Amino acid sequence: MSEAKARRGNYFEDFSVGQVIEHAAPRTLSSGDVALYMGLYGPRFAVQSSDAFARAIGYPGAPLDDLLVFHTVFGKTVADISLNAIANLGYAECRFLRPVYPGDTLSAVSEIIGVRENSNGASGVVYVRTFGRNQRGNRVLSYVRWVMVRKRDRLAAAPSAVVPELAAKVEPADLGAAVPNLDVARYDFALAGAPHRWGDYAEGERIDHLDAMTLEEAEHQIATRLYQNTARVHFNHHEPSPFKGRLVYGGVVISLARALSYNGLANAFHIAAINAGRHVGPCHAGETIYAWSQILEKAEIPGRSDIGALRVRLTATKNRSCADHPLFTPTGAYAEGVLLDLDWWLAMPR
Amino acid sequence: MSEAKARRGNYFEDFSVGQVIEHAAPRTLSSGDVALYMGLYGPRFAVQSSDAFARAIGYPGAPLDDLLVFHTVFGKTVADISLNAIANLGYAECRFLRPVYPGDTLSAVSEIIGVRENSNGASGVVYVRTFGRNQRGNRVLSYVRWVMVRKRDRLAAAPSAVVPELAAKVEPADLGAAVPNLDVARYDFALAGAPHRWGDYAEGERIDHLDAMTLEEAEHQIATRLYQNTARVHFNHHEPSPFKGRLVYGGVVISLARALSYNGLANAFHIAAINAGRHVGPCHAGETIYAWSQILEKAEIPGRSDIGALRVRLTATKNRSCADHPLFTPTGAYAEGVLLDLDWWLAMPR
Amino acid sequence: MSEAKARRGNYFEDFSVGQVIEHAAPRTLSSGDVALYMGLYGPRFAVQSSDAFARAIGYPGAPLDDLLVFHTVFGKTVADISLNAIANLGYAECRFLRPVYPGDTLSAVSEIIGVRENSNGASGVVYVRTFGRNQRGNRVLSYVRWVMVRKRDRLAAAPSAVVPELAAKVEPADLGAAVPNLDVARYDFALAGAPHRWGDYAEGERIDHLDAMTLEEAEHQIATRLYQNTARVHFNHHEPSPFKGRLVYGGVVISLARALSYNGLANAFHIAAINAGRHVGPCHAGETIYAWSQILEKAEIPGRSDIGALRVRLTATKNRSCADHPLFTPTGAYAEGVLLDLDWWLAMPR
Repeated sequence: MSEAKARRGNYFEDFSVGQVIEHAAPRTLSSGDVALYMGLYGPRFAVQSSDAFARAIGYPGAPLDDLLVFHTVFGKTVADISLNAIANLGYAECRFLRPVYPGDTLSAVSEIIGVRENSNGASGVVYVRTFGRNQRGNRVLSYVRWVMVRKRDRLAAAPSAVVPELAAKVEPADLGAAVPNLDVARYDFALAGAPHRWGDYAEGERIDHLDAMTLEEAEHQIATRLYQNTARVHFNHHEPSPFKGRLVYGGVVISLARALSYNGLANAFHIAAINAGRHVGPCHAGETIYAWSQILEKAEIPGRSDIGALRVRLTATKNRSCADHPLFTPTGAYAEGVLLDLDWWLAMPR
Repeated sequence: MSEAKARRGNYFEDFSVGQVIEHAAPRTLSSGDVALYMGLYGPRFAVQSSDAFARAIGYPGAPLDDLLVFHTVFGKTVADISLNAIANLGYAECRFLRPVYPGDTLSAVSEIIGVRENSNGASGVVYVRTFGRNQRGNRVLSYVRWVMVRKRDRLAAAPSAVVPELAAKVEPADLGAAVPNLDVARYDFALAGAPHRWGDYAEGERIDHLDAMTLEEAEHQIATRLYQNTARVHFNHHEPSPFKGRLVYGGVVISLARALSYNGLANAFHIAAINAGRHVGPCHAGETIYAWSQILEKAEIPGRSDIGALRVRLTATKNRSCADHPLFTPTGAYAEGVLLDLDWWLAMPR
Repeated sequence: MSEAKARRGNYFEDFSVGQVIEHAAPRTLSSGDVALYMGLYGPRFAVQSSDAFARAIGYPGAPLDDLLVFHTVFGKTVADISLNAIANLGYAECRFLRPVYPGDTLSAVSEIIGVRENSNGASGVVYVRTFGRNQRGNRVLSYVRWVMVRKRDRLAAAPSAVVPELAAKVEPADLGAAVPNLDVARYDFALAGAPHRWGDYAEGERIDHLDAMTLEEAEHQIATRLYQNTARVHFNHHEPSPFKGRLVYGGVVISLARALSYNGLANAFHIAAINAGRHVGPCHAGETIYAWSQILEKAEIPGRSDIGALRVRLTATKNRSCADHPLFTPTGAYAEGVLLDLDWWLAMPR
């Protein structure tokens, strides 16, 4: 009985379609989290950096960085969903639904929307839709992820496969819910760091973000604990593992690449949606992260004359400059050093 | 004269029974400290994690983690008490007397309650009772520690030995002062992460907390500076030392083990008292901390129907799993890898 | 066109005397930054550590550490001024003009006040006067720095040399603007950690600060990102560089030395001005910082009976104790291990 109090997490056969899981523990985010997020990644987007800048354009104060919200909600799901995961396979239909401010308390609830056992009988893929909510019960975030999870017992019967249909991208009409109507005339482009508006970007345009960051063990551990993400692969150097030491939580790579992308996308102040995302390879401390972006699509947001959306493919690499825009080899495999392949919608002033 | 302005700390012969020392400097703790504490250890106890959760059950907001309070008060004493310490020998009679919230300012005062020179004439043991106070002068913490301190001058006369009688444990009637009367009906066990209440634990029960954390130099240094603890052994890798590099402040091990203990003791949200504690061996960066707990005793707290107390023996190890509950060898010595042997009272909802 | 959106920074030939640059991005500093600053350096000056202490003597609350203000303003200038710098050569005429509190938003503007091409035709020195402002547009900081910057094109014509005359020191009448009139009778010297007032120091006095800190990669990276300073030499271990790995931002050394200087200058609670400063050599992670101070001058501040000023030469070394007050060799070169040679005015209670 006693050992049962310490949880080993769910295995593939513990999940069934329709199951709803309320995740522990709610978490109040504060200006302390804002400062630590700044210290860990160094973002410079003016809206999140300055209360005065945010107020001038119509926010009540600087909203939290969208990825701090994402990682906090994601972190809550780990103990229930992915403690026994082999790999985090992908994201889809991620939307930011309301701004989150210091003092707000986030909690998370997930629904299992698909299961499919692997042919090896040792694991399966679980599809989960997760909602992040604030202290008033309002949804602030919604996303789907799918993850490969070990079976506890290889002999457990395989469930009927259910694979959800997921949108290839979030529709422009579904973007911008987390951005109040802005007074763009009061958006100071000089203070924000670049003159480029939504209209200044072209589909197909490629931007090497130039800067790079070498990642340390203490940095990714502090970040991952800040999100109360307790997946063991990130923290235990002693336990034998199939990986070369501790694995960096993929969200750390996303946040670093996002911060680097300021140099070239300084006014893309809000992540409106994540259409798709893939962690192409593992990341370890000591590696240096570079990033580049390609503009995939430009879209007006229905009903919004203040902001427009850029669909951007963000690629992060390790120990490899992005000057030559690496992504695929001629044979279609990911190029050496590619770590992250992310497709997201960014909101910019028009 | 000039060098006298930089203090080298007190030596054994500087202490006398009855001496009262007001420690510098007062420190306002904020939501920034809460975030950094989260990033350094990753605790998930819902009461400290969420303002909304804490308010629902009767707190005005999330209280600070008890160990953040302890380390802050302890840190203030170092410059006066233990700058020339050889070893921190033990703790007793530690009680948390009032909740502490972001914005509160803590200061510390100590009374020397015992001195006993060692037979080698080179050092002695100093017993100190320390009180932590808030900005209103109310006591929030009280504890005794004893520490082995070098003599400045081996020829200095030995004082009469005074060894205080210390309680083997804090009495249940003295627990819970830092917890307001709670509305347990509004304590959401699903949100808190586990269904187990005080009544669900049994005396003798042993819990391996399963998770583990590898510790980095930057992490323990940031933590120890956060507490304004300036003991040189934690920070100086250059100066020759009898230790293998920088020593980790023992409080960092306690906080890591406490955070790990969430997995198995998720609703033990408050440290009501520390009965005894011993740092069994040194800890260095690069080592991986594991922990397990044994329930020593269950006690009702007189006058409280909302919470009960569990007396728990928490053991932390380094580079060794706690699956086999390591503590002693058959000959009664501490087992290899045991770092910390702590006896504390935890409060849980009934 | 696309690459132009990611900025490579200005080169020597991009600067001209009289040019005014508004720097991105404004930044709200909070109690989160205070906590992180504490964790990174461990300062113990009571005025900045405690709201209660600061209020007792006449502040509305604890002001931010002066160097947190300095580094934040400095950080904003990097993308425009020193991204292509070879070396940061010096500081002068640095004055702290108003207190800054948690919640204030800082921005920065610079004027180019001098340019002088080097004889090698490959680089030149740029002199910049920078102002930091709060959200009300009031100046909180003013300083001059000069920096050696690469030319983009060696063939670009050399501008007429303009070298500004800079004061050897800030005059006492220009000190103390950032300190409200204090009620020194309520300044509790025991709580502050030392009895020494302004009058207790003597010109010529030398103080070894005794303590030391070994610096880690994660620490200086987190600090430098906290200031949104994006100079690549601090972050990229992968890119080949003439340096031995990542260079530590010089401001980190200043902050560490300032925190160490508490031991001997505990009541020198405010940096009123920086007269001159030189980073004598590079600093890397793994090195251990020591510091000592010499009192160069004592000055009354006209119109102030509450505080006086000490002009102090602060020297920081690496991997070398300051017990013998190292600064110059007999031939007048900097002694081995000297990292920082700083001349500043500190304010103390009288």
